[in-house]
Amino acid sequence: MSEVTENESGRAALDYMRDLGTRARAASKPMAAARRAPKDKALAVLSRLLLERSEEIQAVNREDLEAAKLKGYPDAFIDRLTVTEDTVKKMAEGCAQVAKLPDPIGAIQSLEPQPSGILVGRMRVPLGVIAIIYESRPNVTVDAAALTLKSGNAAILRGGSEAIRTNRILAKIVSEALEEAGLPADAVQFVATPDRDMVDQLVTHPEWVDIVIPRGGKGLVSRLMEKSRIPMIKHLNGICHTYIDSYADIDMAVEVTDNAKTQRFSPCNTTETLLVHERVAADFLPRIARIFHDKKVEMRADDPSLDIIQNSGFAAISASPEDWDTEYNGPVISIKVMESLDEAIDFINEHGSHHTDAIVTDSYTRGERFLREVDSASVLINASTRFADGFEYGLGAEIGISTDKLHARGPVGLEGLTSQKFVVLGHGEGRR
Amino acid sequence: MSEVTENESGRAALDYMRDLGTRARAASKPMAAARRAPKDKALAVLSRLLLERSEEIQAVNREDLEAAKLKGYPDAFIDRLTVTEDTVKKMAEGCAQVAKLPDPIGAIQSLEPQPSGILVGRMRVPLGVIAIIYESRPNVTVDAAALTLKSGNAAILRGGSEAIRTNRILAKIVSEALEEAGLPADAVQFVATPDRDMVDQLVTHPEWVDIVIPRGGKGLVSRLMEKSRIPMIKHLNGICHTYIDSYADIDMAVEVTDNAKTQRFSPCNTTETLLVHERVAADFLPRIARIFHDKKVEMRADDPSLDIIQNSGFAAISASPEDWDTEYNGPVISIKVMESLDEAIDFINEHGSHHTDAIVTDSYTRGERFLREVDSASVLINASTRFADGFEYGLGAEIGISTDKLHARGPVGLEGLTSQKFVVLGHGEGRR
Repeated sequence: MSEVTENESGRAALDYMRDLGTRARAASKPMAAARRAPKDKALAVLSRLLLERSEEIQAVNREDLEAAKLKGYPDAFIDRLTVTEDTVKKMAEGCAQVAKLPDPIGAIQSLEPQPSGILVGRMRVPLGVIAIIYESRPNVTVDAAALTLKSGNAAILRGGSEAIRTNRILAKIVSEALEEAGLPADAVQFVATPDRDMVDQLVTHPEWVDIVIPRGGKGLVSRLMEKSRIPMIKHLNGICHTYIDSYADIDMAVEVTDNAKTQRFSPCNTTETLLVHERVAADFLPRIARIFHDKKVEMRADDPSLDIIQNSGFAAISASPEDWDTEYNGPVISIKVMESLDEAIDFINEHGSHHTDAIVTDSYTRGERFLREVDSASVLINASTRFADGFEYGLGAEIGISTDKLHARGPVGLEGLTSQKFVVLGHGEGRR
Repeated sequence: MSEVTENESGRAALDYMRDLGTRARAASKPMAAARRAPKDKALAVLSRLLLERSEEIQAVNREDLEAAKLKGYPDAFIDRLTVTEDTVKKMAEGCAQVAKLPDPIGAIQSLEPQPSGILVGRMRVPLGVIAIIYESRPNVTVDAAALTLKSGNAAILRGGSEAIRTNRILAKIVSEALEEAGLPADAVQFVATPDRDMVDQLVTHPEWVDIVIPRGGKGLVSRLMEKSRIPMIKHLNGICHTYIDSYADIDMAVEVTDNAKTQRFSPCNTTETLLVHERVAADFLPRIARIFHDKKVEMRADDPSLDIIQNSGFAAISASPEDWDTEYNGPVISIKVMESLDEAIDFINEHGSHHTDAIVTDSYTRGERFLREVDSASVLINASTRFADGFEYGLGAEIGISTDKLHARGPVGLEGLTSQKFVVLGHGEGRR
């Protein structure tokens, strides 16, 4: 591309962004003031319209699918892009569920009288305009719209270009639902151009966007971190550990580890590294090795654990230093023997991604130290790392999992899309 | 400065930063794990050492004062730089007060059982390493050290270069107090070089610094916003409004407005713009104009309010458009008549700095709308904007006032220096 056309494309993207941004910013005000009823009505209407127009959505989706197949995308990609009758039903159900969640907006946390006489509390308020950047799955368009709507925000959605036809019709239905409920149709804006410059525009205009949520691979997130001038709720790696302590119940350790690794291989909260205290290694490792062997999970082990696994008759290979820093997202696990709880805590804090880490132990003292000293978004005692999830945590919904420390940490539900301001109720007080 | 020496200075600053950063990062771990007792002991020792060494601190401070006087700094600056016996006493008292505050770290918010059987809650944890960049007042060195220590963080402090001798001895005393209490002396690092490149280093190394708190003028903050790659708790403008509604009690309106403007002129929460509903302007404005006249507050008014003020016999001048966007920090106020509550809310959201805004009204409906729709860190009904302060809000301490929306908004106490992680207590559960 010549420099001139690059500039032209950038200018076109800026003009497009200005239009979207101005509309979203304007719509964010009535959205922030909206009471619960119209928001829930919009979600109910959206749920109904999706079901009514399921055929039409699937027909449009088939165009995206054909184009993607012509471009030679792999099956797994086509799979994520596909919208079936069942996909539409699930989207509709999701909207109905979000409608049932309590409205976070306007909630006031403990108004406390102060010595001056004023009452001081905190009111939950929306963030304003949220830009969500995601990849191929079209259901994110509806999920993200539902959560931003319920939390009183306006949204600018940018989906993967291969799903653009499907996303366009879904976004149109969202706007219709908003309108039918008496809310501004502009409250959910969809970036209907595949122009790649738009992603840069979305992350560099604080006048139009208050927060950016990238829902995509590490590549996307790292690139946005370099460019963004706007705070992000972001998710980087998921290198999660399960540590089997010297005081672990071995039956429980086997069950929890099995679940943490094999319940599903691809999620970010799946355990990638298994740490075992040396005192229980000889008891525990042969039992879990049999399960991994049966479930075809490749074991990459340090020397002490390799010995035990191989001596018990199962295949394993020697772990390389990179294994301790690798997110496999697949049927591979790295295994290491620890001399102490301290070594395990330090190892997790150094090699983990501060996402989700679990200990199996029956020691009160050691469990409490693990909870407190492992610097991760989720820390668990005697439970599978796979639980790190907005639904399992009772948040009722999830827009993603944050590996940041500020604002939202761990699974992010409606509350993560809000902020709190101070409210003061006085009786004419002045400051002395 | 030639390019070569600039590079050399940058390199020296980077080496210095690496040393400080590595020490602070290492110290942040034992600080995060520290229970309340050693932290409170460090604060008590610090309080005692300050009083014991008051003479010495004042003697060192006199060197800073002489150097600053030679450089011709204005009286107000010298005033802020001066440490008297009373200043030391106040610092010592401050430390003793922080010791009395509850320890925020380790607090777990409502462990709730979930359908799977796990209990899920949130534990309050430190942020890690906090860099605080401030200007001339040396007491900030002690205040900031006390608050970061109590909140389980490590700190890197960078004070104004004119106070460097005073800050150095204060920082040394802080380290001694930490050591005497059995905490790492490295937990509070002080940048003991006046090298300006250090500020850039502090805001560009996420490996050593988790959050930056600039406590200084708009110039400093704007410059850091451009450079920083690390999240900031920052404070920009304080353009605060008091709006007198049509349903206001006029006696109360006069008292609250007087306090909001004249109790002190320079703070960020002092009202800069007075908005008055047209229905009460003729009653209210002559009364407040008399007070402003007596207290020598210059009035800059729009046409309708100018008429009323001048007709009642007081001097005022015509406001220019810039007045609506100006933080005076002095005895000047801009005044404008509003046709409606909606106009006032829109005006505040457009011209204010999202800091602190108040309404005086006796209407329940209008008060509630103001609270909800004014997008500011603090919104008040029937109380002076001057209340926006960590102590007045009952936080027990204040590291600053944030005009950001994410993480900490409004006055920032100990809680603003912490984060929350999810903790899960299980009984061997796996995910289904």
